[in-house]
Amino acid sequence: MKNVDHLLAGRSASNGADFVRAIFAEARKPGVISLSGGLPNPRFFPVEALIASTAKVMRSHGTEILQYGTSDGFLPLREWIAGRYKQQGIDVSPDMVVLMSGSLQGLDITGRIFLEPGDEVVIEAPMFLGAIQTLANYQPRFVPVPMGDEGIDTDALARTLQSHPNAKLIEVNPSAQNPSGVTYSAGVRAQFAAAVKNHQALIVEDDPYAELRFDGTRPISLRRELGDRVIGLGSFSKIISPGMRVGWVVAAREVAARFTLGKQMVDSHASNFASATIWQFIQDNDIDAHIAGINAIYTIQRDAMLAACKKYFPPDVRYTHPQGGMFVWVTMPEGADALTLFRDAVATEKVAVVPGAPFYTDGVGGKTQFRMSFSTVEPAMIDEGVQRLARAMLRHLDGA
Amino acid sequence: MKNVDHLLAGRSASNGADFVRAIFAEARKPGVISLSGGLPNPRFFPVEALIASTAKVMRSHGTEILQYGTSDGFLPLREWIAGRYKQQGIDVSPDMVVLMSGSLQGLDITGRIFLEPGDEVVIEAPMFLGAIQTLANYQPRFVPVPMGDEGIDTDALARTLQSHPNAKLIEVNPSAQNPSGVTYSAGVRAQFAAAVKNHQALIVEDDPYAELRFDGTRPISLRRELGDRVIGLGSFSKIISPGMRVGWVVAAREVAARFTLGKQMVDSHASNFASATIWQFIQDNDIDAHIAGINAIYTIQRDAMLAACKKYFPPDVRYTHPQGGMFVWVTMPEGADALTLFRDAVATEKVAVVPGAPFYTDGVGGKTQFRMSFSTVEPAMIDEGVQRLARAMLRHLDGA
Repeated sequence: MKNVDHLLAGRSASNGADFVRAIFAEARKPGVISLSGGLPNPRFFPVEALIASTAKVMRSHGTEILQYGTSDGFLPLREWIAGRYKQQGIDVSPDMVVLMSGSLQGLDITGRIFLEPGDEVVIEAPMFLGAIQTLANYQPRFVPVPMGDEGIDTDALARTLQSHPNAKLIEVNPSAQNPSGVTYSAGVRAQFAAAVKNHQALIVEDDPYAELRFDGTRPISLRRELGDRVIGLGSFSKIISPGMRVGWVVAAREVAARFTLGKQMVDSHASNFASATIWQFIQDNDIDAHIAGINAIYTIQRDAMLAACKKYFPPDVRYTHPQGGMFVWVTMPEGADALTLFRDAVATEKVAVVPGAPFYTDGVGGKTQFRMSFSTVEPAMIDEGVQRLARAMLRHLDGA
Repeated sequence: MKNVDHLLAGRSASNGADFVRAIFAEARKPGVISLSGGLPNPRFFPVEALIASTAKVMRSHGTEILQYGTSDGFLPLREWIAGRYKQQGIDVSPDMVVLMSGSLQGLDITGRIFLEPGDEVVIEAPMFLGAIQTLANYQPRFVPVPMGDEGIDTDALARTLQSHPNAKLIEVNPSAQNPSGVTYSAGVRAQFAAAVKNHQALIVEDDPYAELRFDGTRPISLRRELGDRVIGLGSFSKIISPGMRVGWVVAAREVAARFTLGKQMVDSHASNFASATIWQFIQDNDIDAHIAGINAIYTIQRDAMLAACKKYFPPDVRYTHPQGGMFVWVTMPEGADALTLFRDAVATEKVAVVPGAPFYTDGVGGKTQFRMSFSTVEPAMIDEGVQRLARAMLRHLDGA
């Protein structure tokens, strides 16, 4: 094969995905306790119930499901999603919902619809690295705003929006953020709404973890405050199955129509086979009880991770206390280097995390930080993993 | 909702998709015989066999299928696809295959990897309108080369490539093309290979209809002649089900790796739930017998359409004689206007086709042409539909 590099588009330049893949490859080595994943716990995959759902919905809707469908996706599932927003007191109709092959595709099509190279996109810092990579394809200028303990720094956001009047999008992950685990408090949500009020930008509320809630009540979508200013991205990946690849966008009717057109052009429509099976599963099973079961176990695992952090980490190491989701975000003292720690921890202690740098777009943030996930690890292994990590960290901080 | 048009990217400008949707809306009106669709015949959807396949593969691979997977897709199915190429005498390994959410997504990611605005893409004229829309997102300059009765005009192709040395891609649909129904002959395939030999461009062989073959032997992929110069796009949509949304790309290892990365960034990976079900279906059923069953019926329907064209069309109306696929392509005499005919045919005769203009990128081609599909229409209705159409056509040609 002759080299094709000279034929590549500018957006095909390396974007850090290889680095992240190398980290995950390390984490999969035998004997390594991986706190690096971001996977749902497979014990909650409802294998038998989904088999039954497929059989039932194929017998009632088989010809429709297996044929080409409309690009907005399987209507009964869109109706259910609209109803789910209504439970939060938010008026959403099915023609405002477009099914996606996972919520990440919603973000990709957002970029496709709105972004020219050089356009400004305000993001949280840190931010989910997969979202950074997906948006980076559209070659925007990222404008990061720091996250605090209760959500995005709304003072910094207000200043940033004043100095960037042409920003097109504000991409946020307000509920149990990946990677920080932080959920915007009610106060931050109100200040956020005030800060964005007079700016032109659309808000992209990337919310795949919204249903994973351990303390207090489920956070309410920004759409309740901000209405059609918000493009909401949701997913069944964290509550039913990511391998089925079904998520959604909820947006103003006119904007939803653009997502439908975008979906038509990238892959016609979401898999009706998967969408219809999910819909039937929700009809025949108590989805709230299913989610409560996931949250009960994740709460135990979250508690085990926080207890282990308290027990083993030096006192000057800070970490978040997530109210939901899958992640704890750790900040070591100035001078520490999470990548060096990662390499030593994998090699000598056989425990893996994700170093913080790929969650920032500025090339400097996250040096002292890393992400740990508790979603797929049993409490005893969480304790053991954090203990191993703390040993490597103590050596590293002594030497730093 | 305030208007968001000022926030849109240039690629979001109108691209004719609305026009095409309006045509399909007309075709769906009650009482209309639609020859406009491009849908597989639902009588061949193997509903019960797929139910059994889902149950079986979920019980053996459930945890793997429902979890996040690798971005190249479900390995057993990639192995089967590689084997299918080996049956044609073409050496393909599973790491050269990346599963897509339908073959159209393979074309979209091709554009994402290679195309900058203004880059030249050589295409067939006419060409599948969905492919035109998908590539148009990347704002290339289309360089059309006419189709003849046995495939692309290879003399014109050779001249075009000489005068366009920087063209990056050559997009072709060599087997039972949508919309013309034309299959490249063995001679055209050889001349095609000679014409592209010293040019830099990669060949995109968009081949979803390859298995739908009525006369003679199955055409062999251009990859046999051209090897890693070819990016092949394939699909299960025409032989099992389009609603499952599973297709593939086959390409040189280094290029396949770029598709894997592209897939990771747009939607993580194809639905493993759908991919694994298709794989199990193929394991437990005779796919060649299944395809032969489809081809037997499509042959009868194709014959019915050609017989009706012969019986009812005026002698100066030409039409293709497809050896496979779903379509017959009709060319009326100079001065005819297919869009006017379409409107009259729907309104007065209640029969719908697809006017030819959207299958061209130059704004002038296709005026006298239209596409008819025989895939979902029973022979008696094909005869009736073509007869109705001929009545409208005779009136139109008399008046033209």
